[in-house]
Parts: sequence; C-alpha cells; structure tokens
Amino acid sequence: MPVYKAPLRDFRFLLNEVFDAPRIYERSGFAEATPDVVDAILSEGAKFAENVVAPINQGGDEHGAHWEDGNVTTPPGWKQAWNAYREGQWGAIAASPEFGGQGLPESLELCFNEMVNAASVAWRGCSGLTLGAIHAIQAHGSDEQKKLYLPKLIDAEWSGTMCLTEPHAGSDVGIVSSTATPQADGTYAINGTKIFITYGEHDLTSNIVHLVLARLPGAPKGPKGISLFIVPKFLLDDSGNAGARNPVICSTIEKKMGIKGSPTCVLNFEDAKGYLIGPEHGGMACMFTMMNYARLDVAQHGLGQSERALQNAVAYTRERLQMLAPNGAKFPEKVADPIIVHADIRRMLLTMKSLNEGCRALTTYATLQLDLKHHKDEAERVRADGMLAFLTPIVKGFDTETANETTYWGVQSMGGHGYIRESGMEQFARDARITQIYEGTNTIQANDLLRRKVLGSKGALLELFLAEIDAVAAELSGDSDLAYQADALKAHRTEWAALSRDIAERSAKDGDEAAGAAFDYLMYSGYVALAFFWGRMSKVAKQSLGKSAQDDVFYKSKLQTARFYFERILPRTRTLAITLKAPASTLMDIAEDAFVF
Amino acid sequence: MPVYKAPLRDFRFLLNEVFDAPRIYERSGFAEATPDVVDAILSEGAKFAENVVAPINQGGDEHGAHWEDGNVTTPPGWKQAWNAYREGQWGAIAASPEFGGQGLPESLELCFNEMVNAASVAWRGCSGLTLGAIHAIQAHGSDEQKKLYLPKLIDAEWSGTMCLTEPHAGSDVGIVSSTATPQADGTYAINGTKIFITYGEHDLTSNIVHLVLARLPGAPKGPKGISLFIVPKFLLDDSGNAGARNPVICSTIEKKMGIKGSPTCVLNFEDAKGYLIGPEHGGMACMFTMMNYARLDVAQHGLGQSERALQNAVAYTRERLQMLAPNGAKFPEKVADPIIVHADIRRMLLTMKSLNEGCRALTTYATLQLDLKHHKDEAERVRADGMLAFLTPIVKGFDTETANETTYWGVQSMGGHGYIRESGMEQFARDARITQIYEGTNTIQANDLLRRKVLGSKGALLELFLAEIDAVAAELSGDSDLAYQADALKAHRTEWAALSRDIAERSAKDGDEAAGAAFDYLMYSGYVALAFFWGRMSKVAKQSLGKSAQDDVFYKSKLQTARFYFERILPRTRTLAITLKAPASTLMDIAEDAFVF
Repeated sequence: MPVYKAPLRDFRFLLNEVFDAPRIYERSGFAEATPDVVDAILSEGAKFAENVVAPINQGGDEHGAHWEDGNVTTPPGWKQAWNAYREGQWGAIAASPEFGGQGLPESLELCFNEMVNAASVAWRGCSGLTLGAIHAIQAHGSDEQKKLYLPKLIDAEWSGTMCLTEPHAGSDVGIVSSTATPQADGTYAINGTKIFITYGEHDLTSNIVHLVLARLPGAPKGPKGISLFIVPKFLLDDSGNAGARNPVICSTIEKKMGIKGSPTCVLNFEDAKGYLIGPEHGGMACMFTMMNYARLDVAQHGLGQSERALQNAVAYTRERLQMLAPNGAKFPEKVADPIIVHADIRRMLLTMKSLNEGCRALTTYATLQLDLKHHKDEAERVRADGMLAFLTPIVKGFDTETANETTYWGVQSMGGHGYIRESGMEQFARDARITQIYEGTNTIQANDLLRRKVLGSKGALLELFLAEIDAVAAELSGDSDLAYQADALKAHRTEWAALSRDIAERSAKDGDEAAGAAFDYLMYSGYVALAFFWGRMSKVAKQSLGKSAQDDVFYKSKLQTARFYFERILPRTRTLAITLKAPASTLMDIAEDAFVF
Repeated sequence: MPVYKAPLRDFRFLLNEVFDAPRIYERSGFAEATPDVVDAILSEGAKFAENVVAPINQGGDEHGAHWEDGNVTTPPGWKQAWNAYREGQWGAIAASPEFGGQGLPESLELCFNEMVNAASVAWRGCSGLTLGAIHAIQAHGSDEQKKLYLPKLIDAEWSGTMCLTEPHAGSDVGIVSSTATPQADGTYAINGTKIFITYGEHDLTSNIVHLVLARLPGAPKGPKGISLFIVPKFLLDDSGNAGARNPVICSTIEKKMGIKGSPTCVLNFEDAKGYLIGPEHGGMACMFTMMNYARLDVAQHGLGQSERALQNAVAYTRERLQMLAPNGAKFPEKVADPIIVHADIRRMLLTMKSLNEGCRALTTYATLQLDLKHHKDEAERVRADGMLAFLTPIVKGFDTETANETTYWGVQSMGGHGYIRESGMEQFARDARITQIYEGTNTIQANDLLRRKVLGSKGALLELFLAEIDAVAAELSGDSDLAYQADALKAHRTEWAALSRDIAERSAKDGDEAAGAAFDYLMYSGYVALAFFWGRMSKVAKQSLGKSAQDDVFYKSKLQTARFYFERILPRTRTLAITLKAPASTLMDIAEDAFVF
C-alpha cells in the first residue's frame, strides 16, 4: 500500500513562519482562526486524509465507478468515507456560518484540500465540486436559493456539480447550445446534453445540485448569451427535502486513463426543471466564480499527487539496493547500496521536492489572497484581488505541469516496479494526468495569463508581483549566503518585464504572437515565481537555524533544496527566454496537410 | 479507432535521399537489398502493421493477457496476427540465410520494427524479443545450438525471451543469484526466480526459448561470474521438436500501467534443464548482444508511439472546432475554427513532428551502423562499431524520453477527449511509458553514454560524431538559407566538447560529478544530435525542391519543421549547458532523512 503522510510541518512553516497567516486572518475578519484552531484543523484534516481517504484510493482505481440503467455505484469504501467527511463537517470549514458553515479562512479549506487530493483525487472530486457550487450559490444565489440549497450542500447531505461542457463545446464554452425555456411558473425547462460531468450521478448523497449553463430564447450568440441554472436531481418538496425526480438522466460514464473511481458522466437534460441563478445572460460571470475556485482546487489535485509521488519515491529508494556508489560502497555490508545514494536518483527526488515545496508556497500564497479579499483595508482587498487574478492561471498551469513531471520521476525512481500497478506509483501519474486538462486546459491558462491578465492589464498585474520580487531580492542581497538568489531574482524580474513588453509589441500587430508565446510564458512565469518563493522560504529558514536540532534538519533541507532549485531548475528559463522571442510565423506557416505524410 | 499510416515517405527519404542506404548496402554485402526490394518490403511491412497489427491494439489493452494455472492467454486477435507474421516470414528479414533467414540489412528489419511497434508495442514484444534471442544465438551459440534453435525461431514457430531480472536484481544485473549446477550429461540444472520477463509464457508458439543469466558454482561475485543458458520451455526431442516440459513455471503475470496485452511474467526455474551458451562466466558479453539490439528496439517502441500520437493528434485537431483564430475566424462559415489554426496547438504538433522525424533520422542512422559493421573496408567497420556504441544510449534514452513528451502532447491536443480511453490516445502514453524503463532505465543509458562511452574512450567516440557535425556544418554554411543551422551546429559542437572535458576533469576527482551530470548530458547529446540530423535533412530537402509539386509539400514541410526545431526545441540546450556544470554536491549533500518531513 502506498504511503501518505500529510506535510503538516510544511503547512505550518508556510502559514506561520513565511506568510504570517495569523496576521492576515486577524485583519481579514477571521479572528477565530487562531494558530491553535488552525493547527487543530490541519492535524485532524491530516488524520482524515491519511486514515480515511488514502486507504481507499488504490481499490477505487481497481474497481472504478459503475453505471447501470442510469445509476452509478461508487467504489468500495467511497460511501463510508463520505459519511466520515459529513460527520467531521469537512465541507463546512470556510462556508458561511449563516448556513451552517464555520466561517474559517478559505486558505485553510484549501490546505485541507491538498491533503485530501493527495489521498485520493478520485474520491475528492465529489466534495471538491460541491464546494464550487457552494461558492457560486453564496455569491450569486437569491436569498431563497441560499436558504434552500446551502445548508444541505454545506452539510454534505447533498453534492453539487458544474455542468458546462457539451459534445461540441469544451474549451469554447461560448458555443454551448443547451436551452432554457421559460415556464409559466417562473422556472425554466432545460434541454441539452452535457458531457465530462464529474460526479454528475452517484450514490453518495440523497440529492445532486447541478449548476448548468444554458441559453435563454433569443440570447445573443457567444458567451454573452449564456445563463446559469440550478437544476437539482430531485426537485425540492415543500419542506425543502428531495422530492420528485427531475429528468436529468445519466446515459453513461466514461472509461478513462485515471481517476477511475470518479464517475465522469454524460447527462441528458430532458425538459428538466431549472432555476435561474444570477442575471439573465450573466452565466459566464457566475461560472467564473466556480471556475476560479476549481482552478486552485485542480492545482492541488496535481500538487497532492506530486507530494504523494515524492513520499513513495523516497520510501522506495531508501530501501531498494542496487549498484555501489561511484566513489565506493556506502554500505559495504549490504549486497549493494540503497539507490538513494546515486546522484541521478537524487536529481529525481530533488526535482520533485523543489517543485512540490515551491508549488505549495505559491499555492498557499494564492489561497491567502482569497482571505485578503476580506481585509479591513480596501487597498489590501484591491491588491489581493489583482494578485489572485494574476496568480490563478500560474497556480493551475504550473502546479499541474509540474505534477506531470514529478509523477514521471516518481515512476522512474522505482524502475520497473513503478510501472506495476501494485506499487501505486503509476496511479499517481494517471490520476495527475487529468489536471493539465480539466477546468481549463493549460493552453487556456496560458492565454488567460498572458493575453487576459498581463496584456489585458497593460502589465499592471505583473508589476504587482514584480514589486514583491524586488522587495524580497533587496532583503536577500544583504545576506552573503543568499545573495546568489537575490542576483537571480533581480535578473529575472528585469527579463520578465522585458519579455512581456516584447510580446505586447509583437502581438499588437499579430494576435498569433501572444498565442504562440503563451504556454512558454506560463512556464517562465511559474519558474520565476517559484524562485521568488524559494527566496522567501530561504530567508526564513536561514533566520531560524539554530533554534533546535530537529528543526535544523528541516531548515537546512529548505536551504539545500533552494540551492538545488536555483542551480538545476531555474535555468530552464534560459530556454524559455529564447523560445518566447521566436516568431509565431514558425508555428503558423506550415500547411495543415503538411504535418503528416 | 485510432489511425495509423506507416511513414513510408519518411523512410524512403531517409534511406534513399539522406543516408544513401543503397550504397551502404551494396558495400556491406547486401547486394540483394536493391531499392526495389527494400521498397517492396517496406510497403508490405506497412500493410502488415496497418492492417493486421494496428486493429488489435486497443482491444489488447482492454482485454489484457490472462494467467491461469501457469498458462497465459493472449488477447483476442493476437494469435491470428502471429500466424500472419509467420506466414509473411517477417522474423526472417535480417536473419542468416543458412537457417532460413533472408540475409537482408538489419536497418530494414528495424524500419519494419518501428512500424509494428507503432501498431502495437504490446503485440510486438514477443517477436521483438525473439529477434534478440536469434541475434544472441547467431553470435554466441555452438553450431549445434544454431542448428537446433535458429530455424524454428527465425520461422517464428518458436519464440524467445531474455531472462535477466530477479526480484533483488534489476539495473544491477551483476547481483543475480539464479544458479546453474553442472549435470553429468553436460547440461545444467537451473534454479531461481526471474521477474519482468516479457512473454515468458504465452499461447502464441509451440515452444519458448529462454535465455537465462545464472551463476555457476564458485563463480566470481559480480558481473564477471554470470553465464548465459538456453532453457527451452519444452526440451527438444531427438528430431529437434518440442518434447518433455522443462520445469520453467510462470507463477503469475503483472498488472501494469500499459502494454497490457504483453504478459510480464514471473518465472520460477525449478531444476530446469539448461545449456550453456558462450563461455563460462561470459554471460554478460552474450547478454549485451541481445541488450544492445533490444535498446534500439525499445527506442522504436517509443518512436512508434510518438508517431502514432502525432497522426491522431493531427487528425483530431483538423476536425475539432473550438474558438476563433486570434486574428479573426479562418472558417467564418463554421461554428468555430478547427483547433489546428491555434498557435498553441501547432506548438504541440510541431514539437511532436520535429522530435519524431529527428528521432527517426537518428535511429535510422544508428541502425545503418549495424549494416556498416559488415562493410568491406575494415576502417568503415571499425568506425561503424564505434559510432553504434556511442549512439545506442542516445537513441534509447532520447527516443524514449521524447516519446514521453510527444505522447503527452498527443493527449493534451485532444483536451478531455485525450483522457478518455475510447480515443486511444491515452493508451499511447501508457504504452510508451515503459520505454524509459526497460532494457536499461534511462539512468543506465545516461551513465553508459557519459561514463562508459565518452569518458571511457577519453572522448574518442564523441570526436567521431563531432567530426560528422563539422562536415555537415561546413556544407550548410554555404547556403544562406541554412547558415543559421551551420552556426548553431558549430557553436554546439564546440560547447559539447568543452562540457565533456569539464565533466571529465571534475569526475576524475569525484565519481558523483559524472553520475550527477549524466542524465542532462544524455538529453544535451540528443538535442544536438537531432540538430545535426535536421541539418542533414534540410540540406537534402533544399536541394530537392522544385522537382514536383507533391514532393515540394514534403520538402517544404521538412524545412519548416527544421526551422521550428532550431528556434523552439534546440534552445533547450541553453538550460542543460548550465545544469551540466552544476556541482554534484548540490545533489549529494542533503541527508537521506531530509527529503520528506
């Protein structure tokens, strides 16, 4: 059975030592989120992830979800874990106290999210999407809708979905063609087919609340003609409980590469009764409330699998004996050395570790912006809003691209055993592989970052982040041990700005220039962002050395991992800084029929 | 059903136009391999791959191989394809005519190999390993052994295996502990457990010829104490046919991430009768005959999946309509543009195309060295031997690392549909994922290249290749359109030599320096090698323009793809040139217990 131990020490380091979350919480209306409360929730959340969810993950992959006659059965143990989730009120952490939530910071909900996703992406799908639905209804629902749906969703008595994709409309959500026809009673008759609906049908809850994009009669073409509807699987009776079945039919579930325990449904809406949420034709804005949350969530799907891959790789490579170290046996009494002594295995492990811990810092920082949006100072709120808009595509895109890489090294570090299902490692790679795709492919993230956020703000959002780099670089440059980081950060911030200006100029004449540079720009941004966070972590680690022997192992490891990152990972920007300048013509000139002969 | 069309135009381009294979064949004792014969075999081989093997690949993944009571059943269609293979005598292409082979060039056998591997890696395993066994017996068997085994192996009446790995001995083959005890009749009693034995048991042939590494009594420790044995599943009766069952018991098969139609067996040798092949304690050399062949074979497992991923990505992205091109709709009459108009999709496709065609050139060039080892001039033979030794780890390592990348882009180009099994794309990724592991992980390849080949020859093998780069760079520099390639090649050959010297100096003091740089060195070598081959291809394509409109599409596409490679792929060496210089201490200093907290 693959191991999992929640990275509590790292969460505490980030929240308490690096980002001073207690101060953020205090000033953002989360006075109850004291360090003790936060710590208790993290510890209990870790137990839930380690003991309840992690053990069912491998069996869930073997059994998968099953469809029969419109009903879906989840794998063994799924329902028990759901009940434990409900019992622990794990869906209530950050929800509104008015409807049964605990009103704690969203960053805390998302620390829990990483742990549960590490334990099982496939299981987490149902509760993760339910949180998205809660967020959407909290933000856009009428008072009545909130009263009707939120308490049961927050309690996890019901679950939620996000119904966007149709067979012909994936990334291009603007062309969805499901229809909503107004009825005399003020409701809408929803018709259409939605695909790729995670937990669109299942046996974990007594009702499912679908949030569905559809078009009103005469709606404008494109994204400005889309509205959002609440479409419950069971219509609510007079006392607000699940009543008559609404015709939302699951006609099949997909066979997939991974997350096999998570049913991916085709849903047919056949005159299903729906309720408009938010304004007419205002569905895209409502959807983005869910989507932006889902993108942070998906980033943690990836990061969770990355962490688990690292832990299992370390466990294996410390045990597996093969070959002697090149400078002579380190364990002459054994038949061979444990492979963790070999430099190339260490390259794999440190690549994983430096990316994981860097991505965790990046992601935690982004989730803290969610909390800062409630800060008592308006300037802080505005700043957090911009920072979050800027960071979200980087977090989603970069955490998930690196998850593909780290789970690759996880499999590789185990040799043939990594390819065998029993080890569990290959499942991490397959389960992580969806994260670069769903909730906006990384092509979408890349275009969102470069075209919408950076160029769309005329560089203002980038400047917000560059200013933070400047501040940290200035601090680091005073420390001779860390000045190498300051130098790298200064060079990169200048280059990042210059590259952005260059693309802005080129793309003013030709939109393909930005589109052709977008993915490399996303990766460049991710590597520089991680360098920044490794700088921040290094500073704290350096200052904290010498307090206790046990902590010193941790802090020293941070400083060594930072050095690895700057020496062996950050140089990837040297390639990207070149490819970002390559003209789009190289991509666009080749004829469609000249790719394959 | 996923598409596959054998890349015959590209094979012809490489063999006839770029590498002048007809001349190589003529001078290396393959007078019968005239362009017509070669072309007929390629065309017929393409039909076999496309029509017989490709159609059973997806079903093979769904059904998998099944074990029961020591017997293994292959998936539906497997046996019919095997019979067709036998009927077409596809295993005889390059085998010795003395034993029923056709005596044609090995490069031709390996062109066929890429096509069959593209069609189905899982199915090809059995015949691919049989070729390895044929090579080993041809090279090391006694006359009697050749007479007994070769005709039936070449005819594909029987199959062969390579039994190296044991539960405790994978990369470290030197510590295998299976034993061979001499018997009064001159045979040996073989005892031990072998794992990860591809097609160690199956229902395709009437006998299986295992080639098994084991230790004689009193053999020296380590790789110098290993001998190779022929251990048939059925002992041969007096007329050389399969007779009494030899106790080689398949106790189970593995559940794997991919190549599910290929049974990966645990084999228990329980006093099985074996016959020594080659000298006592000389097993490692015999094994390397098989292994070096298997490494080229595995490279083509990867390349085949890469090619198939590209073809299916192109087919999908030309059909799938999503979003408008940034400069305005290219197909205003459609609901959206086909996604192949989008720059980021083209980046994916051109990454795949430039790596695939580059790897095919590299691999074909390497396989031609197999033929050149029979050249009438000794100097040519010696040169080919050195070139092949140098290129083999690059071909295996680089073709398979890029296969991981290209199948990644294949899945990504299809969005959510790439993750669904029906599309077939995710299978290519899973089936390709073993190639970075088996027949020597890419860590082993990297160390073989840097430590054994480059440092071990004091740079002589590298110089052999650098001299070829110099010659091509000189030719290219005279063409103003291709001078950019010449410049890049010159800069890289100089840098490659300098980096190699730098590592040699560092590793003279500390073995970890080479081990820590080895993987990045392998990748650097691969990228520069591909630049060289893109240079060669560009030169030919440029010269050939204007002959016919249809050919011009092909040649123009080569020149455009080359430009993409130099602008957007080759710059990856900018990162590697830095990380190659990073000290090993960054890898080695971190304590074993400081990777995870």
